[in-house]
Formats: sequence, structure tokens, C-alpha cells
Amino acid sequence: MKVDGKDTRTIWVESDGKSVGIIDQTLLPHRFASVRLKTLEDAAHAIKSMQVRGAPLIGAAAAYGVWLAMLHDASDENLERASAALLATRPTAINLAWALDEMLAALRNRPRPERAAAALRRAYEIGEQDIAINLEIGRHGFKLIEAIASKKNGARVNVLTHCNAGWLATVDWGTATAPIYLAHDKGLAVHVFADETRPRNQGASLTAWELGRHGVPHTVIPDNTGGHLMQHGLVDMVIVGTDRVTAQGDVCNKIGTYLKALAAHDNGVPFYVALPSPTIDFSVSDGLTEIPIEQRGAEEVATMTGKTKDGRIETVQVVPDGSPVANYAFDVTPARLITGLITERGVVAASRVALAAAFPERARA
Amino acid sequence: MKVDGKDTRTIWVESDGKSVGIIDQTLLPHRFASVRLKTLEDAAHAIKSMQVRGAPLIGAAAAYGVWLAMLHDASDENLERASAALLATRPTAINLAWALDEMLAALRNRPRPERAAAALRRAYEIGEQDIAINLEIGRHGFKLIEAIASKKNGARVNVLTHCNAGWLATVDWGTATAPIYLAHDKGLAVHVFADETRPRNQGASLTAWELGRHGVPHTVIPDNTGGHLMQHGLVDMVIVGTDRVTAQGDVCNKIGTYLKALAAHDNGVPFYVALPSPTIDFSVSDGLTEIPIEQRGAEEVATMTGKTKDGRIETVQVVPDGSPVANYAFDVTPARLITGLITERGVVAASRVALAAAFPERARA
Repeated sequence: MKVDGKDTRTIWVESDGKSVGIIDQTLLPHRFASVRLKTLEDAAHAIKSMQVRGAPLIGAAAAYGVWLAMLHDASDENLERASAALLATRPTAINLAWALDEMLAALRNRPRPERAAAALRRAYEIGEQDIAINLEIGRHGFKLIEAIASKKNGARVNVLTHCNAGWLATVDWGTATAPIYLAHDKGLAVHVFADETRPRNQGASLTAWELGRHGVPHTVIPDNTGGHLMQHGLVDMVIVGTDRVTAQGDVCNKIGTYLKALAAHDNGVPFYVALPSPTIDFSVSDGLTEIPIEQRGAEEVATMTGKTKDGRIETVQVVPDGSPVANYAFDVTPARLITGLITERGVVAASRVALAAAFPERARA
Repeated sequence: MKVDGKDTRTIWVESDGKSVGIIDQTLLPHRFASVRLKTLEDAAHAIKSMQVRGAPLIGAAAAYGVWLAMLHDASDENLERASAALLATRPTAINLAWALDEMLAALRNRPRPERAAAALRRAYEIGEQDIAINLEIGRHGFKLIEAIASKKNGARVNVLTHCNAGWLATVDWGTATAPIYLAHDKGLAVHVFADETRPRNQGASLTAWELGRHGVPHTVIPDNTGGHLMQHGLVDMVIVGTDRVTAQGDVCNKIGTYLKALAAHDNGVPFYVALPSPTIDFSVSDGLTEIPIEQRGAEEVATMTGKTKDGRIETVQVVPDGSPVANYAFDVTPARLITGLITERGVVAASRVALAAAFPERARA
């Protein structure tokens, strides 16, 4: 999407033809800078340190990481080594393993001299495929926004979102944001309430930043605020992303999503989840009991990082010395609270039957 | 309650007999320092800047503010001016208006030379009355904790609370925390999940601080986390405070309370609100439509203040330049989501009939 008027993606091949550019997302929202990845190690570091994050973008970055490895040494040993190193960067993202499997399948049976070129081609395809899926999600979600806009006689549509399921989490367009960008670009009046999303603040630091750079009207709110807004009719719909959807339509997403789903349900506000279909895990049914929830480091809760008045980036401790903290990264929203799943094949009910009907080739008996 | 082993209150008359001491709560949890209020303006500033906060403490501070005004000028004009100035400091808390009414009633028909002494006496009584009420709330709430503890065969009782309805919000004991302190002091195993409570972080900076200083086991959690904990049986009960309860039992409290009430309801976790009866506003019925919700400054959402590694207090900006923010201070939890109101007269159902029966002298026809 746009940054300072210029079309920008989260990952690209540099003009030298032998390195990959990324936005260093750890510097956002206060600094916008790109980093050039020249080696497998650069790519692994970028994923591990969360310079790139978001399941689809992690997948694309890993694919390009394999390409960088092949540029230097296209041996079988290096291919396996690169794949293993990249797989070890982040423990949970399903897209990471998927992208690496795709790369291995494309390269293993190919002569070494062809591997680098084939790797670049496949990595690029993975990125383009992500964009195409997100655009389809956008088109289906756009119709939902359009329908609300027409009911409101063109008054602006207020969308609440949680965390960052924006273009920064993908190669472009984002998942939850794709319908919003499409609506905005087509001239529909749309406004986004971006949940801050403690403890890592992805809503305030990433979603607000990308919406602002593209020119989409938005307001940052504390995670506590969404319920109040919904009680007073100030939210027309919720759209969030997800890290994993189960066969029965339970949604695992950033901690706090469940609370917003409860508020939406209590106030008759439609609650949508936008996702590329690879996010559906047909091997899991009951999200609450079957999905292990990652617990992350205390420092994410105990501290906040931001910009001082004189422009320095500083980290401050916001809990008392000696107070323990808990940091659950995700929660599960039961299917009963979800109005619909916005996928590349259309809006699907959050139920076993509907999911199996929409993705018969993936659903198991 | 205890701070470094020493019994401490939030407000007191200084030994010079002409000024009031308070804990500067804006410096917590990183610095524990007191401030001396010498004038009406000092008292108004302390309330407005939230050096003192919490509905009962605001009431006590306003009462002492009237005393400070009377010390300097006991005229009718100054009495009215002081009352108006103090009333204008915070819009939502009912205790502020109540305490000022009490002071006016105690002073208006008194000769000027007697007013300062009478004001001091009445302000002190208001403070002592707050402590006595909180202790009664504590005794009634303690029975609820005790009952859960006996059901759990003495395993520790996990209480979730939001914001700070602790002794720092009152003169001593607190409202939501009074049952917890009593339970802890009597040797019951109790553990508190303290919601961080963005944007002002009163849970992390005040509740965690006061629990820690008194030695009560606790864990600070992001506001997003409570729903997940309740889904997994990790919360036995919720106790929060309130700024205003309506005649039908709707509860106005810190923004985000409603979301926790929804989660408690969805998971069968009892949700209690602890309050001194002056917090009940029998003139208001439907909390959602009749209680005006204070909107506060953007900087509370846009920034966070904390301690750097080298011990400096620093404020950092946590939203992108140019991103608007919204800062609603309170929300309303409908009576239907509330298990009971813990008052100084016992646990009362959140309903018009029960409230009128418990407080017949205040309920209106």
C-alpha cells in the first residue's frame, strides 16, 4: 500500500538482483527504514528478531531466505541447512513450514546450477500468491462494508480491528485490512478504530501507522474501549485476522480478541475474521482445549518502548519492581460469537459444515 | 494499609494543623512521595491532575479542600467559590458532589469564625466514615472469598480486579481490595490478577504496587488477558470498584470493566462490585443513556510513563505521529451482568428492588 504516496510492499527483490529488501518493522511507527538481506543468516535474523512478522510475511521472507542461501551455495547440504535454520526462527507460524516445504519441493529435484533462479521464481510466486489471496479477501469483505454503507446512506462505516492483520503482516493488502483499503480506494467513507493491542502494541504501532500512511481515517483506542463504543452504536463491524482457525470455526488470534467478540455479540455488531484458507487447521476441532497458547516473556508486559520528546527511542518499565506478570499471546474466540469468516472463496459461516463445504479438498472426513 | 511495614493512609492532616498531606499517586509505582496541600487551589489541582484519584478519596480530598479554603477566607462567597471550583475538577464521580454537599450543609448556617474548625471536623469525619464503610464492605466480601476457599479446600482463591479500587482510591482499605486485604490478613490464600488498565495503567501502577507493599500475591496482566484466564478456570471471582451505581444497579466504572463482566458472565465466574452506598445515585436509572462519560486528553493514550533502566522517569510516545486517539474514561456495565453489589450493608442484588430495600432512606419513589 502507500507510504508517503509511494506504493510499497513489505518485501522485495533489490535492484542488484542478489539481495532482498524489507521494512524493519521493529523501528515502526517512529522510524521507517528498510534493511537489505544478503544472506541466509540475514533472513533468519530478520524473522527471529521480528523485523518481519505476520504469518504470511514470515512465509515469504523464509522463501527468499532459501533463495539467498542458494545464491551462495546451491548444494543439497546447504538447501537442507537453510531450510532447517529458517524453520527454527519462529515456533508457531504455520505459513513458515508451508513456505519452506514449497521451496524444498521446487528445488530438491533440480540441478544445482538452476536452483538459485528457481528459488527466486518460487519465492516471488509465494509473495504474489499472498497478494492475490488478500485481494480476494478484500473483494469479499468490501461487499460487507458496501452493504453497511448503503444502509447508512453513505455515512462513514466504522470498523474496529484488533492487533495488526494489515499489509505489514503480509506482502501487501493485509487480511483484515484488505476490505478497508479497497473501500477507501474506491471512495467509500470508512474509519477504523485500531485497538492498541497490549502488550506488544501492534495496533497502535503498526495498524495505525499503515492506515495513516495510506490516508485511511482511523483512531487509536485502548483495548478497554471497544465495548463502550459498541454499546453506543459507534462500531458498525469488527474485522480481525487470525493465527489459526479450527475445523469447527473457533478462531485463535491475538489475546483480547475474545473480549471484543463478546462485546460485538452483546451489542449486535457483526464480528468478522479475515483469513487466507491455509490458516484453517482441519486437524483441530475445539480451539479452547486443543490449541496450545504461547506464553511470552515478561518484559513485553513489564515495559513499553516509544519515542521521547527529543526523538530518542526509549524503553520504560511500567509495573512495580517485583510484581510478577503473565503474558499469554493468544486467546480463542468460540465459533458461536463469529458472524463470518472472510476467505478468498467468500464469506463462510464459522461452522464445521460451512468450512467443509467451502474447502472440501482440505476438510477431512 | 502497609507500606514498607508501616501503616499508611492516602490523606491526612499535617502536624502544622493547617495543611493536608497526600501521596502523590502520579509518581507511583516508581516513587513513593507525599505532597502538602496548603490552599484550595492545591486541593483542586491535586484532584484534577489525579495526584489523588478514586471516587472516595476524591470526596475526602474535596472536603479537605473546603477546609483549606475556609482557613484563608470563611466568607459565604468563598465557600460557594471553593465548592464550585472543586466540583469542576472531575465530572463523573458522585462522591465529589456528595462530599461538597456535606461540607456546604455543615458550614452554610454557621458563623464565619467557626467555619474553619467545623470544616476540618466534617472533613475528618468523612474520611473516618470512608474507612468504616470500607471495613464493612471488606467483612461482607470476605465471606464470599471464604466460601470459595472452602469449596476449593483451601486452594488459593484467584480474584481478578480492574483499575484501582484499592486503598489508594480511598482513605484506607479500599473497596474492591478490602475483602482481599482482610482475607490475606486472616491467612486465607488469595491471589489477585491485576488488569493493567490502560490508558492510565492504574492496575499496574497502583493496584500491583499496593498489593505488593502489603504482601498480597498478585500478577499483572494486560487488559486483553482476563477473558482467556476465565475461559480456562483460572479466575474464581471478579471484584471491581465503581464510580457510580444507578437505581437499577447499572455500574459505571473504569473503561474496560464491561468487557470483563461479559467474560465473567460467559464463563460463569461471579462478578462483584464493591462500593460504599454514597456511590449509588438513585436519581439515575439507565446507566448507558443517563451517565455522561468523561473523555480525557489524548496524551494518556498516546504516551506511557515509566522508569528507564538507569532509573529515570521518562514519558514515551507509543502511537504514530499524526494518529488520532480516543480516550473514554469509563464505561457502563448493565445490571444483568452483575452477580452482586458488596456494600457496607451486605451483598445486594444489582436491581431496583434490592437496592431500594437495602437503602430505603435514599431510594426515591
